[in-house]
Amino acid sequence: MIDQFDDQGRLRHLLTLDGLTRDQITAILDRAEAFLRPPGDLPAWSEALKGLSVANLFFEPSTRTRASFELAGKRLGADVLNLDISTSSRAKGESLIDTIYTLEAMQCDVFVVRDAQAGVPEFIAENVEDHVRVLNAGESHVNHPTQGLLDTMTIRHHKPDFGSLVITVLGDVRHSRVARSLAHALDALGVAELRLVAPDNLLPDENDFPGAMITSDADRGVTDADVVMALRIQKERMTESDIPDPQEYHRRFGLDGERLRLAKADAIVMHPGPMNRGVEIASKVADGPQSVIREQVTNGVAVRMAVLEAVAGLPTESPEDYAE
Amino acid sequence: MIDQFDDQGRLRHLLTLDGLTRDQITAILDRAEAFLRPPGDLPAWSEALKGLSVANLFFEPSTRTRASFELAGKRLGADVLNLDISTSSRAKGESLIDTIYTLEAMQCDVFVVRDAQAGVPEFIAENVEDHVRVLNAGESHVNHPTQGLLDTMTIRHHKPDFGSLVITVLGDVRHSRVARSLAHALDALGVAELRLVAPDNLLPDENDFPGAMITSDADRGVTDADVVMALRIQKERMTESDIPDPQEYHRRFGLDGERLRLAKADAIVMHPGPMNRGVEIASKVADGPQSVIREQVTNGVAVRMAVLEAVAGLPTESPEDYAE
Amino acid sequence: MIDQFDDQGRLRHLLTLDGLTRDQITAILDRAEAFLRPPGDLPAWSEALKGLSVANLFFEPSTRTRASFELAGKRLGADVLNLDISTSSRAKGESLIDTIYTLEAMQCDVFVVRDAQAGVPEFIAENVEDHVRVLNAGESHVNHPTQGLLDTMTIRHHKPDFGSLVITVLGDVRHSRVARSLAHALDALGVAELRLVAPDNLLPDENDFPGAMITSDADRGVTDADVVMALRIQKERMTESDIPDPQEYHRRFGLDGERLRLAKADAIVMHPGPMNRGVEIASKVADGPQSVIREQVTNGVAVRMAVLEAVAGLPTESPEDYAE
Repeated sequence: MIDQFDDQGRLRHLLTLDGLTRDQITAILDRAEAFLRPPGDLPAWSEALKGLSVANLFFEPSTRTRASFELAGKRLGADVLNLDISTSSRAKGESLIDTIYTLEAMQCDVFVVRDAQAGVPEFIAENVEDHVRVLNAGESHVNHPTQGLLDTMTIRHHKPDFGSLVITVLGDVRHSRVARSLAHALDALGVAELRLVAPDNLLPDENDFPGAMITSDADRGVTDADVVMALRIQKERMTESDIPDPQEYHRRFGLDGERLRLAKADAIVMHPGPMNRGVEIASKVADGPQSVIREQVTNGVAVRMAVLEAVAGLPTESPEDYAE
Repeated sequence: MIDQFDDQGRLRHLLTLDGLTRDQITAILDRAEAFLRPPGDLPAWSEALKGLSVANLFFEPSTRTRASFELAGKRLGADVLNLDISTSSRAKGESLIDTIYTLEAMQCDVFVVRDAQAGVPEFIAENVEDHVRVLNAGESHVNHPTQGLLDTMTIRHHKPDFGSLVITVLGDVRHSRVARSLAHALDALGVAELRLVAPDNLLPDENDFPGAMITSDADRGVTDADVVMALRIQKERMTESDIPDPQEYHRRFGLDGERLRLAKADAIVMHPGPMNRGVEIASKVADGPQSVIREQVTNGVAVRMAVLEAVAGLPTESPEDYAE
Repeated sequence: MIDQFDDQGRLRHLLTLDGLTRDQITAILDRAEAFLRPPGDLPAWSEALKGLSVANLFFEPSTRTRASFELAGKRLGADVLNLDISTSSRAKGESLIDTIYTLEAMQCDVFVVRDAQAGVPEFIAENVEDHVRVLNAGESHVNHPTQGLLDTMTIRHHKPDFGSLVITVLGDVRHSRVARSLAHALDALGVAELRLVAPDNLLPDENDFPGAMITSDADRGVTDADVVMALRIQKERMTESDIPDPQEYHRRFGLDGERLRLAKADAIVMHPGPMNRGVEIASKVADGPQSVIREQVTNGVAVRMAVLEAVAGLPTESPEDYAE
C-alpha cells in the first residue's frame, strides 16, 4: 500500500481512510469547517490554488460527486478540467496509464479519479511522479474516502462524542463503498458501535467490517441508534437479493417514520444520495426534522476543499483569509 | 404564481415575462445596453459575480442558449457549472427536486433551467430557499423570457416607438415559447399590432395571444409590417400540419425576398435560431441588409448578463466600472 | 488560400504550416519555450487573455487535443467554451456557418476547430469578421499545425541542427495529418532528409510530400535516422491495407527495440498519441530512455499558449511577466 502521507506528515494522496489516525481525520475535518458559510452568503472563495490544474477523471458517470469536486476546485481558484471517459471508450482509446501520463505531461498536478474497478486510484498513485496527487472519488465497492469524511463531519457536528455513539447503516452494505469508508473513519474515531443491516444476500463479509454488528433485522439494527444512514438500493441488486420488489424492500429495510422511532429520540438521519424515495427511505423521513441529508452535501464541498488544499501542499491559511 | 420581484421591487426570479411592467422590462434592457461592445473589442468583463456559483441545468439539449448563459456568467466572473441531464437519465436517477436540493446544498445560488415540461422552472422556484434565484432558459412551449427580452431589445434598437409598430411572427406559433414570451413583452410595451401567421394546424389558441391578429395568410400577415420574425419549423411538425414538405412550407410560409417586399421598406428581419435556411427563411433574407439576426444573438448575452446581475442583488455599477 | 499573417506580419489564423517561413516557425517555438516549467512547479499562468472568449469547436471527438487547448486558454486567463458537436447533430441542427455566425455574435473571438472534413477551418476563416481568429486543431488527413509545431519544438530541443537530421515517420502516412504538418515544418526548417514508411496500401502520394523518401521497408527507413516517429494505426485501416492483424503490423512496421537499434544510437522516439502499445510501438520503446513522447505533450500546451497569445494580438511580454 502506497503511503498517503509524506515524511513531514502532509497528505499526498487520499485513496482510502483505512489506516488514517484520529488526528489525521480530525485535522481535515477541522480545516473543512473553515469553508462553511451560512446559506445565502457567497460560498467560501479564494485564489489559494490559482494556477493549479485539477483533472476530474471520471470513468464512471457521476453528477453529484463530479459537481462537488468541480465547485471545490473552482472555489479555490484552480483550473478544473472535466474528463468524462466511459470505460468502453477507454477500451477503444489509449490505455489508462497513457491517459494519466498525458495529463501529467500537461501539468495536471491533481487527479480526481472515479472508477468502477478496485485498485485503479492506487495504481495511478503508484505511477505518477512524486509531485502529482491522486484523490479517490469513488472506487468500485471498496473506497470513497471524501464521502466517509463528509459523513463523519456531519455526524461530528451533531454528536461529537464518538465514544458513546451507536451508528447504523441500512441497505446494500455488501456493495457499498460509502459504508466501508465510513467504517474506516469511525474506527479511527473510536465509535462505540457500528451496526450494519442488509438483506441476507447483501450482508457484507465480516472481515470487511471488523467489530461491527451485522444483522438482517432492521428493527433490531435501528433500535437506540444515534445515527441512522440509509443506503441507495440499486434495482438490479434486488433480483440478486431475496427482496422481490421496492415495496417489499421498503417494508423490510426502508427507513420510515415508524422504524425511525425505534432509534434514539434525537437520532439523525443520513443518506449519501441519490435517494430512491419510498424505497430505502420514506420521503417524510428524508425531509423531516431529524434529516441531515442536505448538510452532508454542503459538508462534501467543504471536505473536498480541505483535501484539495491539503494535497496542494499550501501553507494553511486561517479562515479569515478567505473571502466572506 | 410566485412573485418574481421582492418587496423592494428587485428581480428574484425570471420565469416568465407575463405580467412584467413596461418599467421593469425597460430597466433590464437599459442595463443590458451597458454590456454591449463593438465587434473586435473584448467583451464586457467584470468580477461582479466573483464567488457566485451558477448552475446551468439543461434537461433539454441546447448549444446556443447554454453557451449564451455560460458566457454571460463567466463574463461576470461567476463560477459556472454545466449540468446536461437528459430527461431519461432524470427518470433513472434522483428526482428533480432532489437534484435541486443537492445543488442548493452545494451553494449554487442561481439556477438556469431549461426543461421540456411546462411548470418546471416555477416548481423549482417554489421549492428553493429564499436566497436562491431561478432563471427560465426555455420551458416547453410556454416561456422563454430571456429570448423575449433579447428580441425586444433588438427591436427597440431599430424601432424604439413600440406604440406605432406592427410586428409579425411567422411559423409554428402554436408550439413557440419564443412567440409567447415576445407577446408578453410587447403587451407590456404597448405595441400597436402583433400578427401571428401559421399553417392552419399550427395556429395558436386565441386566448394565448389576446389582441393579436391571427391568420394563415402569410402575405396578409407580412404586409406593412415593421418587424418580421420567422420561427424555426421542426420537420416532425410538418406531418402534423397541412404542409407536405419543406419546399411547400417555404412557398406558403417562408420569408423570402418577394414576401419581405410586402413589409415596410425599412422592416427588420428576425429569427431566434437555429435556422432552416431555405425552409422558413431564404438565405438571401437571413443574410440581407434588413436582417438583425446576429444582433439578436449579441443582445442575448447582454440581456443574460443584465438578468444575472439583477438577480444576484448586486448594487448596479455604472457601465464605466466594466473593463472595456 | 487565405493569408495567415496580417500586413505587419502578425499571425491572424493558424490553418496550416504549409508556406510558413523558418523565421515564422522559429518565432512561435521561441515564444513557446517561455511557457515551459519544470515538473512539480505550477504551470505558467497569466491573465494575458483575460476577458477573451475562446470557443473550442470540436466536430470530431478528442480528449487530448481539446484538453491541451482548454488548458492553454485557461492558463492565459481566457474564458474557454467547450462545444463538442458531433457531425451527425450538425446535420440535424443549424448549418456550420450559422454556428460560426452565432458564436461570433456572442463575441467568441478565437475559434479552435477540429473537423473530419478537409477545408472546414479555412472555410471558417474566410467567413468570420476580420478580428476573429481561427486555429486548426486537426483537419481530416491534411493539417494539424499545432501538432506539427509541438513535434518540431520537441525535435529542436534534442537536435537543433535540422540541416543534418534524418527524420523517419512510420505508419499510416497516407491518412496522417500529423505527418503532413510535420513535413511542412521540416521543409521550412531545411531538414536534411524526411523518410516516410508505410504498408504498400497506406503509402502517401508523392506530391503530398515533395522531396521525401517513401518506402514500405521499415528497416531501411529507420536505419541511421536521428528521429523516429511512429504513427497510430487505426484498426479499420488494417483491412484496407495488406496487413492482416496487429501482430503482423507490429512485426513489419512496429517500432520495437530491435528496429530502433538500426537508427542512430542517440535517436529520439516520438508518437503523437494515443498509442496502441504493442502494435505500432513496443511498450519498452515508448517508455524507454530514447522516448520523448511525454515531452511532446508538454510542448503541446506551450505551443498552443504561444499561438493563442500570438493571434490575440497582444504585446509579447517577456517570460518574467508570467507567474512562476
